Amino acid sequence: MHAIVKTTPGPGAVYGPWPAPSKLGLRDILVRVEATSICGTDMQIYDWHELMAHRVKPPLIMGHEFAGKVVEAGKEVSDLREGDIVSGETHINCGKCFQCRTGNGHICERMLLRGVDTDGCFAEYHLLHEGSAWLNDKKIPIEIASAQEPLGNAVHAASAAEISGNKVAIFGCGPIGACLIGLCKSFGASKIFGVDIVDYRLNLAKKMGGDVLINGSQENPVKRIMDLTDGRGVDVFFEMSGAPPSFEEGFKVLRPGGTAVLFGLPSKNVEMDVANWIVFKDARVRGVFGRRLWGTWYKTAEVLKAGEVDLSKVITHRFALEEFEKAFTLMKSGHSGKIVMYPNRKPPSN
Amino acid sequence: MHAIVKTTPGPGAVYGPWPAPSKLGLRDILVRVEATSICGTDMQIYDWHELMAHRVKPPLIMGHEFAGKVVEAGKEVSDLREGDIVSGETHINCGKCFQCRTGNGHICERMLLRGVDTDGCFAEYHLLHEGSAWLNDKKIPIEIASAQEPLGNAVHAASAAEISGNKVAIFGCGPIGACLIGLCKSFGASKIFGVDIVDYRLNLAKKMGGDVLINGSQENPVKRIMDLTDGRGVDVFFEMSGAPPSFEEGFKVLRPGGTAVLFGLPSKNVEMDVANWIVFKDARVRGVFGRRLWGTWYKTAEVLKAGEVDLSKVITHRFALEEFEKAFTLMKSGHSGKIVMYPNRKPPSN
Amino acid sequence: MHAIVKTTPGPGAVYGPWPAPSKLGLRDILVRVEATSICGTDMQIYDWHELMAHRVKPPLIMGHEFAGKVVEAGKEVSDLREGDIVSGETHINCGKCFQCRTGNGHICERMLLRGVDTDGCFAEYHLLHEGSAWLNDKKIPIEIASAQEPLGNAVHAASAAEISGNKVAIFGCGPIGACLIGLCKSFGASKIFGVDIVDYRLNLAKKMGGDVLINGSQENPVKRIMDLTDGRGVDVFFEMSGAPPSFEEGFKVLRPGGTAVLFGLPSKNVEMDVANWIVFKDARVRGVFGRRLWGTWYKTAEVLKAGEVDLSKVITHRFALEEFEKAFTLMKSGHSGKIVMYPNRKPPSN
Amino acid sequence: MHAIVKTTPGPGAVYGPWPAPSKLGLRDILVRVEATSICGTDMQIYDWHELMAHRVKPPLIMGHEFAGKVVEAGKEVSDLREGDIVSGETHINCGKCFQCRTGNGHICERMLLRGVDTDGCFAEYHLLHEGSAWLNDKKIPIEIASAQEPLGNAVHAASAAEISGNKVAIFGCGPIGACLIGLCKSFGASKIFGVDIVDYRLNLAKKMGGDVLINGSQENPVKRIMDLTDGRGVDVFFEMSGAPPSFEEGFKVLRPGGTAVLFGLPSKNVEMDVANWIVFKDARVRGVFGRRLWGTWYKTAEVLKAGEVDLSKVITHRFALEEFEKAFTLMKSGHSGKIVMYPNRKPPSN
Repeated sequence: MHAIVKTTPGPGAVYGPWPAPSKLGLRDILVRVEATSICGTDMQIYDWHELMAHRVKPPLIMGHEFAGKVVEAGKEVSDLREGDIVSGETHINCGKCFQCRTGNGHICERMLLRGVDTDGCFAEYHLLHEGSAWLNDKKIPIEIASAQEPLGNAVHAASAAEISGNKVAIFGCGPIGACLIGLCKSFGASKIFGVDIVDYRLNLAKKMGGDVLINGSQENPVKRIMDLTDGRGVDVFFEMSGAPPSFEEGFKVLRPGGTAVLFGLPSKNVEMDVANWIVFKDARVRGVFGRRLWGTWYKTAEVLKAGEVDLSKVITHRFALEEFEKAFTLMKSGHSGKIVMYPNRKPPSN
Repeated sequence: MHAIVKTTPGPGAVYGPWPAPSKLGLRDILVRVEATSICGTDMQIYDWHELMAHRVKPPLIMGHEFAGKVVEAGKEVSDLREGDIVSGETHINCGKCFQCRTGNGHICERMLLRGVDTDGCFAEYHLLHEGSAWLNDKKIPIEIASAQEPLGNAVHAASAAEISGNKVAIFGCGPIGACLIGLCKSFGASKIFGVDIVDYRLNLAKKMGGDVLINGSQENPVKRIMDLTDGRGVDVFFEMSGAPPSFEEGFKVLRPGGTAVLFGLPSKNVEMDVANWIVFKDARVRGVFGRRLWGTWYKTAEVLKAGEVDLSKVITHRFALEEFEKAFTLMKSGHSGKIVMYPNRKPPSN
Repeated sequence: MHAIVKTTPGPGAVYGPWPAPSKLGLRDILVRVEATSICGTDMQIYDWHELMAHRVKPPLIMGHEFAGKVVEAGKEVSDLREGDIVSGETHINCGKCFQCRTGNGHICERMLLRGVDTDGCFAEYHLLHEGSAWLNDKKIPIEIASAQEPLGNAVHAASAAEISGNKVAIFGCGPIGACLIGLCKSFGASKIFGVDIVDYRLNLAKKMGGDVLINGSQENPVKRIMDLTDGRGVDVFFEMSGAPPSFEEGFKVLRPGGTAVLFGLPSKNVEMDVANWIVFKDARVRGVFGRRLWGTWYKTAEVLKAGEVDLSKVITHRFALEEFEKAFTLMKSGHSGKIVMYPNRKPPSN
Repeated sequence: MHAIVKTTPGPGAVYGPWPAPSKLGLRDILVRVEATSICGTDMQIYDWHELMAHRVKPPLIMGHEFAGKVVEAGKEVSDLREGDIVSGETHINCGKCFQCRTGNGHICERMLLRGVDTDGCFAEYHLLHEGSAWLNDKKIPIEIASAQEPLGNAVHAASAAEISGNKVAIFGCGPIGACLIGLCKSFGASKIFGVDIVDYRLNLAKKMGGDVLINGSQENPVKRIMDLTDGRGVDVFFEMSGAPPSFEEGFKVLRPGGTAVLFGLPSKNVEMDVANWIVFKDARVRGVFGRRLWGTWYKTAEVLKAGEVDLSKVITHRFALEEFEKAFTLMKSGHSGKIVMYPNRKPPSN
């Protein structure tokens, strides 16, 4: 088969022939990858960022977001069969540790990441354990089935705060932030502020239902948001960017008694005014990581089925798998939403 | 002034001249009633139902839902002034008991009810304590300002369960149930079932956003709902009618681990299959009473301001206050939504 | 090996030789049963109550509570090894359904019960899947390791309400109720009322830390509890008996805004005054079933390790397995706490 | 009367004659101060720390913690009478803003602080609004009635996390931290770690029930706590000191999925490793400020009445009011718990 492989330590990756997975365990399934989407983590591996350089052991097939058709199932696989359309959860949990056994598999104590610690899905075929597979409704378009993870992140983030009838500010309007805006709209937020520094993303945020979009490099989000909330601020602040200024601005517009949801990963320590941002406000702060297994997936599927969030608006570009260099370059430019690659067929036109 | 007064014990009431309120306390306000709406409780007082016969002491001005203009304010009133448009909370709480002091004034230990225990608002003028008044945004139409209580009941009920991305079944589609359906739609319920035995109400429920409307006197709601939820049932069941069959049907369609919200008041004991309905399901059940003071009002105002629920659809008829007999008769027929009466001017046409 | 077997439909059971489990699956473990305790469910099977007559398919080895030593482990068993002391969760969940995948395996959609739907542990050896096994700290005495389920039920029930600094009333002081009293004491309940109709149990409740013990057949629990709570009632009401009068008495002493936790299984419908017990009180009601997998077990182990609940006080009698008829008769009399049987050795003296 | 007065801007204060409060409002009460205790805030005002220098407007009677006897009550005061023993809540809330009207008076939008923004209680007499008064059970010793605020802070902090059956680490063992340790013990924490850099305080923490006391200036709390929790860390981390190293150490020992409660006020920004401390851990962080009005007071009273926390152990020294310089000097040394002063009588011996 063909795959995108990190063959050696250092920047870059190679598209070419590679051995298909062969040893199917009793509870494994083999999947023909129909669509696979690019995430920021893939970019970090490609660029060989420090974080990934310490963790990834080449050679490794890259990629973790996908949807595909089951072509073979191990003997003890019970709820999946050939022909099923599945996606895979990136976080591969052990199922046996304290966290897994208490409904918190998303913070498993022995977590492995698909496409980081084990071979990924930027390939024609991909093998995974049934315990990491999600069975899709066949009515869901394949590229949406592939790109459920960012919506899932948004669902997990949204579940950490009360959205309905509340004012929310979302800092960072990339694909996940854009999904979150769509979700907040659908869940009845009374006003949605979106903040980013790239206009392309703010346009996407607007399409998803943002009420007030603010380019933080051109105007002061704190002043604008406080003006539009009668000086009280928002009920919920979502930090989806990891950029240090977002923390300061976000906590400043959070009303006392409100909830801050932290999803973005700052690359270094953040200076926080704990007294004024958190203590005096009697604030709730929630770190959210990945997606709940599998509560988030059920809700994501429900939201998609009910047509509450139009994920197709977030998917802006399609490529053949072999065009990955072009796709990665576009992704890096910031002028895209979600990008989907097709390993086994010609991509639909954009 | 003119008012609708329960002059003597027994059925009926009289519209006629009556002394206007005169002794304005330091923290009281006097309001000219611009619009006042009819609630089921008013009907019980009119009909002299047993429950009310034991409680009400005539003579008493009836009515508790209203909106009006402040015409005079006591010397220590600080946040309200002449010309403000206010509504009044029906539940007059003491502000000093255990419940009031712990954020639960809606279940005050010394609760009085406007129009039941103290003079009400079916009159040209009404006097109330500033602590029972709600300042309205002047952009809200006056009859919507009057009819905020049923929406408030719905907001309180909705806050007792997770609506967003969930399937809900609402038994009882009168004005409060209809408001709740609108709210669930706005809050992103993935599927909304409405059940009633009066088609007029089911039509109203449809207008408010119900997905599947079921006339329980003509088909089996349990079968229909289970069929449409793949046999799993709904995540949330709202009992808004007080009718005994609704309890059985509602608990039967509630999925294990789901939430039942009980708002309707059965007139006698309900036979409940506690083992199968509640224990084996590890279910959550919430009684909800009135509205949270004042969290519910803030959220109700926010929802109205954001245009999330169109309360005007629930208001189906208008009358002059003196036409109250006609209004009450219509209300009893079940062929109305909310009915608004105008004490100080000609009602707008329906 | 020897076992207690329900050989034919109808009352009774037989102690005698029976084939030991032989086919060890890849993720199964074989356990030598060191101690096994009797639960009310076992009595229902023995007596061939209607509920069990419809479900149990003889021949079947009875029993579900036990602790034992692993003597053999399947090839894919990873976290358990020979010599480990394990207990087993009675509820055998599938691990793959909606409930299992969302942290609610205790209400699995394909639940099987050990000793009811599959062979149980009233035997010298017992075979179970690693996914149903709980690894015990070796410092825990074996009979306490066996009797963790009732404490687990109590932990699950307690988790449904706020105990610390609150007044609680526990209706039903059998082994689970007695464990719950010990737990509430340890968790800082400010006052604990225990109600039962058997003095033996009330004595046990007293030993476990109950403050006020009331024999409901001799005095009115409602009057007593209201008197001792300044007429306000308790913050939390636990129904652990399933007896209809407990529901009425318990809800009457529940303060407005309080929480009712329903664990007991009434054998028929309960007449509930929904308006006064639940709605007007804005009450929270929680059905609790079994134990959370595995959050309850972790907390139970923690509580035992910290010495917070002395489970040994609840274990009142020991027998050899072959003396089961004597044990069952005693259990039926109501004059015992938990009874432990020893299949592989002479029981310690009581 | 005599009082401790900040007469002019700058360090220091004066004990001497001062006009007693005279204008009793309709809902005010006048109290003879029987006992008054010293808090860190008082020290900051005395020392004229920058924070207070910007806020305090001399002349001002200092002090906010007290208990005393009602000697006069305004005409509209309804639930208090002469002879009642009351304490006062330091945070004087307006009762009318969004926060006050939604059960969050402790973060009132127009908050005033007793002894900071208005005259305090380091005096023979003190006047306050009935809405800021707490009626004490007369069985509570007067100096404990005075020192309820630190226990109240602890109750508020404890309510932000699940304590029962959980492992907790408390950083900062001053009077509030010591109260919190006593509370966690009473609420059934399975293991309590206390960290401070002053041995006097660690001794106090031990007396209150701490299991493992660590002097952070002499050994590494992270290593010790991780060793004693099998490398998993604690379920709950309380930051009660405001010292920057506590944040780093505390978040490092917090287990994934755990809860951090932040109460201490850092004097400057804290560098936080948001990714590793909060996001990857899917952690809950709660700022806690003051005490809930009045839920915290009810629970504090209940805890005291049930004898769950022995607050007398935290009160280590007594002085006459005129000896305040001695009391302040001792307080500054770190070699005291709570210090109580007596304005109207000779202090009991220590």
